[in-house]
Amino acid sequence: MSSLPNFIIHRPDPALAHALRHKIDRKTKPLGALGQLEALALQIGLVQQSLTPSLQRPSLTIFAADHGLARAGVSAYPAEVTPQMVLNFVAGGAATNIFARQRGFELQVVDAGVNSDFPSDLPLRHEKLGYGTANALEMAAMSKAQAVQGLEIGRRIAHEDADKGSNVLAFGEMGIGNTSSATLLAHFLAGLPIAACTGRGTGLDDPGLARKIATLEAVAARVGSGPHTVLDILAEVGGFEVVMMAGAMLGAAEKGALIIVDGFIASAALLAAMHIEPAVRDYAVFGHRSQEGGHPLLLEHLQAKPLLQLDLRLGEGSGAVLAFPLLQAACGFLNEMASFEEAGVSSEATP
Amino acid sequence: MSSLPNFIIHRPDPALAHALRHKIDRKTKPLGALGQLEALALQIGLVQQSLTPSLQRPSLTIFAADHGLARAGVSAYPAEVTPQMVLNFVAGGAATNIFARQRGFELQVVDAGVNSDFPSDLPLRHEKLGYGTANALEMAAMSKAQAVQGLEIGRRIAHEDADKGSNVLAFGEMGIGNTSSATLLAHFLAGLPIAACTGRGTGLDDPGLARKIATLEAVAARVGSGPHTVLDILAEVGGFEVVMMAGAMLGAAEKGALIIVDGFIASAALLAAMHIEPAVRDYAVFGHRSQEGGHPLLLEHLQAKPLLQLDLRLGEGSGAVLAFPLLQAACGFLNEMASFEEAGVSSEATP
Repeated sequence: MSSLPNFIIHRPDPALAHALRHKIDRKTKPLGALGQLEALALQIGLVQQSLTPSLQRPSLTIFAADHGLARAGVSAYPAEVTPQMVLNFVAGGAATNIFARQRGFELQVVDAGVNSDFPSDLPLRHEKLGYGTANALEMAAMSKAQAVQGLEIGRRIAHEDADKGSNVLAFGEMGIGNTSSATLLAHFLAGLPIAACTGRGTGLDDPGLARKIATLEAVAARVGSGPHTVLDILAEVGGFEVVMMAGAMLGAAEKGALIIVDGFIASAALLAAMHIEPAVRDYAVFGHRSQEGGHPLLLEHLQAKPLLQLDLRLGEGSGAVLAFPLLQAACGFLNEMASFEEAGVSSEATP
Repeated sequence: MSSLPNFIIHRPDPALAHALRHKIDRKTKPLGALGQLEALALQIGLVQQSLTPSLQRPSLTIFAADHGLARAGVSAYPAEVTPQMVLNFVAGGAATNIFARQRGFELQVVDAGVNSDFPSDLPLRHEKLGYGTANALEMAAMSKAQAVQGLEIGRRIAHEDADKGSNVLAFGEMGIGNTSSATLLAHFLAGLPIAACTGRGTGLDDPGLARKIATLEAVAARVGSGPHTVLDILAEVGGFEVVMMAGAMLGAAEKGALIIVDGFIASAALLAAMHIEPAVRDYAVFGHRSQEGGHPLLLEHLQAKPLLQLDLRLGEGSGAVLAFPLLQAACGFLNEMASFEEAGVSSEATP
């Protein structure tokens, strides 16, 4: 019988928080005036256990896979777009390629389970768990063995990146139908209602949205109310790219690397990862709050405050990469900004 | 008698909007999936009248000045912080220095009217309009001649930047007491109520906030309900850094350059600039929505949607510089991303 791998994640030692807070508060600015960047600097310092944190070799891994549920009409786009977009990533023409180049990210694309064969010499990581998941309306999307295998592969990918020197890992996804998988994960693992969580994905109209909600409720009814383990749920309603991303997030945290979480699907992958090992949360920075139906609710559940709110609904890791300059800004002010003492600036408010 | 300079700003020709929208819509992404970045790409393309816009020699100018109202206890910090922070900018130790270095901005600091003498050989632009404004509780903050001179100096500074090749200009400010000036400008020029607009600045407590509101209402009562021209209002309640920034924004637009607006005070300067020549608005991109009391209201009045909401309350142009990577992302996707045709990706939603 398949069982979950054992992920060993150390929580960052909170003892450094006091010194970090003091360093932040002595910078030449009113207390708290750098807002969210101060919380970010504190988190990065804690994760790296350093008063002078630095971001090394940022990497973006895009996991692509197909979904059996796409055949049930949950997406505005045909499933053939998944392999087409994989080729677009490999050719460097997608939005996330542009953003990753601008920000100096190493980018790799992983075939986690696209329903199409790619030439073996394509600069693509071939880790296919299957030709798309099964239709979750009828049966579990994947076997538990596949889910475990996906977690292990994701972990290995993150470990390899960390071993190459990356200490900040962003993850993206591509998979027609994968907002459905994310919605079902949010439903089963966070208790969120399906109708409130179901969004238009890449562009459903009103009847399409109603059909998507009915479909997802039928899937939920088939799966039943449990009790379920997180592995049950990943197998029942997960996606190959989602389980691999969850494994990669856990692997990144095992290596003490920062994770930049992208949109709704990446947040659902983190949710699953947290059900496997809650300490992964300490390593996660949230890049973007998407418009997609369930994302604001899921972020609230995760008590997460993303850095950007740009109405993106693209996935591909775009929101994670776009947020990266703010991580640089947080490290920059912590490392380089003058303190009141250094600059000879009065730090006391007038009485 | 002093009168306003004549600023000549051409509105960007909207004829290019259709071609820009078409180019954006044919990129390999669902329609609208890049959210605010799409609106930004459209605006930058229109301002530059180009389907392939680019950002050249970004510059940040920080205008510093003192305020007579600071003597009335409207700030948590003593006025001596203004010259101290000017020295900190010149030494490169302030937050905005770090962010500007990270993003490759040219930075200049302007003494628009600090109540302190600086050594003449300091790498600082000496454009002092006075040793701080007069106390607006008792009399006009400055003469109309000073306001006009400030507008002209600001215009000249922006023109020089544009002539050196800058096509994107960010403006910041430093001046203990200047949220009071911004609140009064928002009151008189946008009709916003003083109490709702008055914030804690750099950190007032509750009694301090109540005192600030009472002080600003007393200033408004002294000035009276008008009718007033924009020049009247700039003279009555403006600040030397505010009028100079307004002039610089107008000068940037005269040169066809993008303006990145920072927080509350910069938004108030833009408001004043719009009362002089409304077309300046077309050139303005909004970097950050600050927590400061009046900023959300003023942004609503300006129908502006800032790129960032990070709870910054620092000024110095920090929010403008931090938003710059998003301008780069907007130009990047417009210029480099593949179209559906180029990438061979299906663009049609399934029926």
